[in-house]
Amino acid sequence: MMTTTTHNLASLGEFGFIARLRQKLRDQAGRTDVVLGIGDDCSACTLPAGELLLTSTDLLIENIHFRRDWTSLYALGRKSAAVNLSDIAAMGGTPRYLHLGLGLPQDLALDELDAFCDGFLDECRAAGALLCGGDTCRSQTGMFISVSVQGTVPADQLVRRSGGQPGDRLYVSGTLGDSALALHLLRQGQAPPPTLARRHHQPTPRLALGRAVAVAGLAHAMIDLSDGLLADLGHILQQSQLAACLDPAALPLSADVRRHLNHQPEDLDVVLRGGEDYELLFSAPPEAAPRLEQLAVRLALPLTAIGSLQPGEGLWLCRPDGSRQPVEARGFNHFQSGQPA
Amino acid sequence: MMTTTTHNLASLGEFGFIARLRQKLRDQAGRTDVVLGIGDDCSACTLPAGELLLTSTDLLIENIHFRRDWTSLYALGRKSAAVNLSDIAAMGGTPRYLHLGLGLPQDLALDELDAFCDGFLDECRAAGALLCGGDTCRSQTGMFISVSVQGTVPADQLVRRSGGQPGDRLYVSGTLGDSALALHLLRQGQAPPPTLARRHHQPTPRLALGRAVAVAGLAHAMIDLSDGLLADLGHILQQSQLAACLDPAALPLSADVRRHLNHQPEDLDVVLRGGEDYELLFSAPPEAAPRLEQLAVRLALPLTAIGSLQPGEGLWLCRPDGSRQPVEARGFNHFQSGQPA
Repeated sequence: MMTTTTHNLASLGEFGFIARLRQKLRDQAGRTDVVLGIGDDCSACTLPAGELLLTSTDLLIENIHFRRDWTSLYALGRKSAAVNLSDIAAMGGTPRYLHLGLGLPQDLALDELDAFCDGFLDECRAAGALLCGGDTCRSQTGMFISVSVQGTVPADQLVRRSGGQPGDRLYVSGTLGDSALALHLLRQGQAPPPTLARRHHQPTPRLALGRAVAVAGLAHAMIDLSDGLLADLGHILQQSQLAACLDPAALPLSADVRRHLNHQPEDLDVVLRGGEDYELLFSAPPEAAPRLEQLAVRLALPLTAIGSLQPGEGLWLCRPDGSRQPVEARGFNHFQSGQPA
Repeated sequence: MMTTTTHNLASLGEFGFIARLRQKLRDQAGRTDVVLGIGDDCSACTLPAGELLLTSTDLLIENIHFRRDWTSLYALGRKSAAVNLSDIAAMGGTPRYLHLGLGLPQDLALDELDAFCDGFLDECRAAGALLCGGDTCRSQTGMFISVSVQGTVPADQLVRRSGGQPGDRLYVSGTLGDSALALHLLRQGQAPPPTLARRHHQPTPRLALGRAVAVAGLAHAMIDLSDGLLADLGHILQQSQLAACLDPAALPLSADVRRHLNHQPEDLDVVLRGGEDYELLFSAPPEAAPRLEQLAVRLALPLTAIGSLQPGEGLWLCRPDGSRQPVEARGFNHFQSGQPA
């Protein structure tokens, strides 16, 4: 679907862009759940009877959330959908429909816009979700991306942040810190290893895991890791009104992160506080352990116990020798950091 | 809910802002249709059984869609919700839930942010709709507002753009061109009359009209006027595969617009092509006329027949003397205009 011409948006126009996008969506034509897609005042869609409507919205702003010289537009398109789909995963839901708002610089090349849309739609397709509408306008100051995702979940399968129980084990999927370390290296002017770069630029929403955990009722509380492990665990603690112990030695780390920490152990903070893992963090009762082990095998996705929920307040790093060190449940704060991207 | 201190966002922080917003939403606590509002990965809401989910999303970008020196932040908050609610009206739906994405300059004063939120929530309340979630981040380049609205409509009451029939009369609600003329004057450095300024800065979504027309089955096709009368009528013509005649003498104009056109008749184009009326344009069979007259009285909202749909293609200004002048179904194009706001 790429074009080799160098047209830009000014020559295409708003309605030309919408027509072009509709062409890319021809494979949605068979979906009877969408009564009206792009092209009316609203989309009109059906939902499974009796299920709750889940909705999340995320902004991605150029030079705040991404830099165009660090990412391909295709990866950015995938990521824009993925970070939203991850929120549906965190509730145990099934993703259904996406709406895309785009503020576009007038000089954006048409093949870059095509690459963005192709990435966005590929990520939607991989999740079985459909782009049903949106809004586009020009921007005088870089790309603005606003994505809204809708999913559904049977009411008795909804997994909240607030459901944690004392004695629950804390699990995370995948590995932690890959994305944050990639960003850390990019900011220092270094090229991150390709596996880390991919984890940063093109994260994978853990939809199958979230859904499986919800269907089987294995998790009491769940969240996706977008703001960093400590901050996102902090949300569970605050809403479940509990404390937690984390074993830093138990954190699942990729070979690349492990190698880096061997040389620069002080960067453990990047792993603990850096965001954008888009893994799931959930609390589960100890008796769920065997079924979670089976689930990890079935999904070919590591699930690692990294600590536990406890009565009280606070967050501690607890080492096997019995020592406890309090840590602040804090990650990246959008209004307090002065550092772009 | 205003504060007189001069705190800004950097001192409040992202989660401080979210906590503040939740305080403003305490009156939603009794709504049992919202299972989870702000504060989890997704909102979780119920919908009336068997109804279609309607969704629309709109972007408002500073210096493209608005200028902070021309509007109060309270009015901007109301407008941000209103322009989205208007899309629900255009489908004949009932608005339910909104999600708000905000990119905020770090120096935005907290009382300005409060005013924006108060306006947004007042508009939601007036529509019986609830703010259920969103995303906030800092912006290096002015305010960036992304709103997503959800509503519902029984499937047999959905009013599309594509349903127009030859012989239908074309109706518009309210008056046309007030908003566009206000903007035209602002751009020329003049202060618009207060009634026009209010129509531009704080438009009224025609929710009761859209719903009444849908319930009674009075309209074949409907759209809200955001891009300008000619452009939006063009969408109905394109999707209904029909032509239209408009009688320019029949256009409903406010006293302020009429007075302006007396002196500057060349500005009729501002009325025909200028956007942001947020009135409803719909096509209805001639036999619906008596019921539409009753509806106009009941809602205290003028409904004016301004032309008709005809077989074929094209858009004409048709005068009572029988003369026909072709016009282009074109309004404001976001990527081709070089003029901000």
